[in-house]
Amino acid sequence: MDSENLNKTKRVVSESLEGKLGESYQVLDKGFVRVVDYMGNDQAIVQAARVSYGKGTKTVNQDRGLIHYLMRHGHTTPFEMCEIKFHVKMPIFVARQWIRHRTANVNEYSARYSIVEEEFYIPEIDKICYQSTTNSQGRGDELEQQLAQEFRDFLTKSDKSTYDEYTRFIEKGLAREIARIAMPLNTYTEMYWKVDLHNLFHFLKLRSHQRAQYEIRKYAEIMEEIVSSWVPMAYEAFLEYEKHAKTLSRSAIEYVRDNLKEELSSERERYGIGAREFTEVTEMLTGAEKE
Amino acid sequence: MDSENLNKTKRVVSESLEGKLGESYQVLDKGFVRVVDYMGNDQAIVQAARVSYGKGTKTVNQDRGLIHYLMRHGHTTPFEMCEIKFHVKMPIFVARQWIRHRTANVNEYSARYSIVEEEFYIPEIDKICYQSTTNSQGRGDELEQQLAQEFRDFLTKSDKSTYDEYTRFIEKGLAREIARIAMPLNTYTEMYWKVDLHNLFHFLKLRSHQRAQYEIRKYAEIMEEIVSSWVPMAYEAFLEYEKHAKTLSRSAIEYVRDNLKEELSSERERYGIGAREFTEVTEMLTGAEKE
Amino acid sequence: MDSENLNKTKRVVSESLEGKLGESYQVLDKGFVRVVDYMGNDQAIVQAARVSYGKGTKTVNQDRGLIHYLMRHGHTTPFEMCEIKFHVKMPIFVARQWIRHRTANVNEYSARYSIVEEEFYIPEIDKICYQSTTNSQGRGDELEQQLAQEFRDFLTKSDKSTYDEYTRFIEKGLAREIARIAMPLNTYTEMYWKVDLHNLFHFLKLRSHQRAQYEIRKYAEIMEEIVSSWVPMAYEAFLEYEKHAKTLSRSAIEYVRDNLKEELSSERERYGIGAREFTEVTEMLTGAEKE
Amino acid sequence: MDSENLNKTKRVVSESLEGKLGESYQVLDKGFVRVVDYMGNDQAIVQAARVSYGKGTKTVNQDRGLIHYLMRHGHTTPFEMCEIKFHVKMPIFVARQWIRHRTANVNEYSARYSIVEEEFYIPEIDKICYQSTTNSQGRGDELEQQLAQEFRDFLTKSDKSTYDEYTRFIEKGLAREIARIAMPLNTYTEMYWKVDLHNLFHFLKLRSHQRAQYEIRKYAEIMEEIVSSWVPMAYEAFLEYEKHAKTLSRSAIEYVRDNLKEELSSERERYGIGAREFTEVTEMLTGAEKE
Repeated sequence: MDSENLNKTKRVVSESLEGKLGESYQVLDKGFVRVVDYMGNDQAIVQAARVSYGKGTKTVNQDRGLIHYLMRHGHTTPFEMCEIKFHVKMPIFVARQWIRHRTANVNEYSARYSIVEEEFYIPEIDKICYQSTTNSQGRGDELEQQLAQEFRDFLTKSDKSTYDEYTRFIEKGLAREIARIAMPLNTYTEMYWKVDLHNLFHFLKLRSHQRAQYEIRKYAEIMEEIVSSWVPMAYEAFLEYEKHAKTLSRSAIEYVRDNLKEELSSERERYGIGAREFTEVTEMLTGAEKE
Repeated sequence: MDSENLNKTKRVVSESLEGKLGESYQVLDKGFVRVVDYMGNDQAIVQAARVSYGKGTKTVNQDRGLIHYLMRHGHTTPFEMCEIKFHVKMPIFVARQWIRHRTANVNEYSARYSIVEEEFYIPEIDKICYQSTTNSQGRGDELEQQLAQEFRDFLTKSDKSTYDEYTRFIEKGLAREIARIAMPLNTYTEMYWKVDLHNLFHFLKLRSHQRAQYEIRKYAEIMEEIVSSWVPMAYEAFLEYEKHAKTLSRSAIEYVRDNLKEELSSERERYGIGAREFTEVTEMLTGAEKE
Repeated sequence: MDSENLNKTKRVVSESLEGKLGESYQVLDKGFVRVVDYMGNDQAIVQAARVSYGKGTKTVNQDRGLIHYLMRHGHTTPFEMCEIKFHVKMPIFVARQWIRHRTANVNEYSARYSIVEEEFYIPEIDKICYQSTTNSQGRGDELEQQLAQEFRDFLTKSDKSTYDEYTRFIEKGLAREIARIAMPLNTYTEMYWKVDLHNLFHFLKLRSHQRAQYEIRKYAEIMEEIVSSWVPMAYEAFLEYEKHAKTLSRSAIEYVRDNLKEELSSERERYGIGAREFTEVTEMLTGAEKE
Repeated sequence: MDSENLNKTKRVVSESLEGKLGESYQVLDKGFVRVVDYMGNDQAIVQAARVSYGKGTKTVNQDRGLIHYLMRHGHTTPFEMCEIKFHVKMPIFVARQWIRHRTANVNEYSARYSIVEEEFYIPEIDKICYQSTTNSQGRGDELEQQLAQEFRDFLTKSDKSTYDEYTRFIEKGLAREIARIAMPLNTYTEMYWKVDLHNLFHFLKLRSHQRAQYEIRKYAEIMEEIVSSWVPMAYEAFLEYEKHAKTLSRSAIEYVRDNLKEELSSERERYGIGAREFTEVTEMLTGAEKE
């Protein structure tokens, strides 16, 4: 950090995120993610949680433990006390998926006010795949090289000719709001996107999932890296209890119970599971839990 | 109504909306709006308001008066007690504006799961206009006929050739989620859109405004007609206190005050203004209001 | 149903919920839950889902299967297409917990407009318990009978004397908005509460949980019964994949894996697990899943 | 500011708000408002707006002008790009009004986890008033001194005896979640409350209004002062176009038109109205506007 350009503040900071502030992280061929601003850090989560729990929380007195406890029990409001603002450039079809996350603030580039720029997403050859046979919404094996190249060529040529016509009509005075309706869904757009940490985790869980479209997954991956710098404790808890957790249905629990060894191992340290969680999991597996 | 296909219900109904239920109202060249379901009517607004005001509301005892009172004072929660569900087909660039209204429920056609249909919005000649010189986001005078026709021809031809390529690649097995990224913003999409009456009024006010893009305005117009059937009293209040109301800034109020006649007319009946509103407006105009 | 008081409608109905419409179900000593109105049923969920999946969903062609699929994969938007409106009477401390669910519409009785009624929640003897030693937010064993009775007597007497003073000051002309600040948190209030099915399920999951306070749990229980009448298929899926499901953290999954028998049973029918879910669970348990 | 305790940051700061950060501003007898953290300043609003308007906004090139333009036209999303987090202590009846603003993040002190403190709001003598005869939800003239004193005495005594009993039962082991139900609505509670600037302006407009209850108005007043330090340009625009603006219904506009002098003054500078707004207002008053 160039300390001459720094401001002074009484606010809490996240040292490691400061180093990334304002940096553009490239995504896909011409997109990027850039952190514009943020509020709070791991301690801000703890601080808010302690308002709720007040004097009653003597037992969960360590920050990491408290953050894991909150995440594990779905106490989501303290995570809402952190906020982050991104500047993102993405293809319109990605923006359309993105915007479905309603609990966020958005300012998108307007093609009614401004001229659309000549920037289109052209997928890499190995990302141009066959329709998946097992996943009706996804892609499967790679297309034959030649066919994939044909698709790239078609896209490139089509984008160019559409943009040429767009420019020509704009120059003749056609209203921007009409001219742009010819533009394809792989045209790049930009937005400022501001969200709280709880809703960002929800976004990251859904959009980094293997069922999410490849292109938006790439944005989620970069954003996960950013979040791991910003709030490392919360991110660790997110991985443990959200992203890499699995939900078993009532029937699946029965199935698991019937397939357990006679005697369960009690080496909880080996798995890094806390004492209370270990008890709960064991009770769940043995059917000893109450309720 | 074909009474043989009717269900029986204890729920309140809106007789005039029932007649429109399930009907497709055409919008633009290939779009439509269709009411799928609704909850509540004018009386449901009154009923909810009376829970809030309880026994204290003896004086506002008529439904119409109460509804106007609520709208005039921005008491919006009773209007949230009515809900409506539309099935709408619109071009993607319209859907992108639509979806910015976050307080609504949405299920949109997925081009990851399903094949996109060959339906594109081609504007009428007289809707293909010059960029407005006074409104940086809008359109102004009509383009010369020939140029407008050129744009239509370009759109039609471009849409056709893009769709042919889309179909060709789909047939060769290309994943739908990739193939569709070539599609233009004037491709039609469909969604179920469910919203409460308060948020619908907000949508209608913004999207029927002259600054809204022509295409989404056409949807708002049809939906206004539907709403006027559904909740005629609330709609009348919406026109009076929201859609056709004007907000004067603090400075503009000063300006108006200085330009009033010496003596104000007191013929409030002539304007159909209620006694209390008349007093408030007069006090505001003469600066006699307390605050 | 008294068929003479019924309205005719083209809307879909839920026959079994119609029978409960308008009925007051008692909760606690003086509270109630009453369904005022609803929109949609199980078929409305399916209908909305099919808009999203369009022609691509030939394989999930049965309603029940589709609803279970949606719930299992967290495809929540089709459940938002159903809406229900309750009239609820509950103590203020319950209302304070209730209102934290932000995605809902609310009209609450206003003690600024109206006189508060003399109705207070007095817990049953066996619900007056010791502070839990294991759950810092809950109650544990029953208090000694005599002490519990003392608390009831204190509450009853205190409520009575507060209400007498409230009435006395109101009669002398004290503003209602001030007089009511003396009222205790066990005073009953009422509200209209309208919510979509997805958010209602979320409410029911949290508020029927053993960690939720007993009093709000009683409301959740009654509402679950109502929901089971309204949308039986969705409710069944909710029980299976939400309410009685369990989430295993990343570490807990490792622990479970190490404690499984050498060979897993393949009797999936015995557990009523669908083929695809069975594969997924098995892969998860054996670590064979890809991601 | 004690510069030794300051952090360094690349983020934008609001110098004048920094001076207030962490300070407790007293409200009512025992309440307070304290800014815990913030994100953004006036320039952050401008920056986000320019993403939307891109290169098309050459003409609105000054920050103040742009911010006024945005506020005047209801372009609210750029204001959502600023966020502020308060720590607030208020009586429960105020918290109940506060929480109705749903678009905010909240962590409230939990009386299930923690012991309630002995702090109650006792209104000043001159705030104990008669029920208003003109405003069914408000207070009017001051009560006779003696009666007001009686109410204070009753409150004080009742609060004390309730708290004594609360303490006694807590000490005997009664669960906190039950013991607290006897507490009155004038008991103080605390919360962290985080909100974006657009929704904060909405809160301030409603809660500083003369119809809002006196007690919550006092909080709104302090918060307005804070906001005027934080984002002075946006606050100025808020005063002009929101707080001190007035909305005329369609009928009221007709009434005003008929009561204007023959010839309108054209001294717009005198009123500090911008050229475009002046044209719009004049057209509205003379009925010359197109729509």
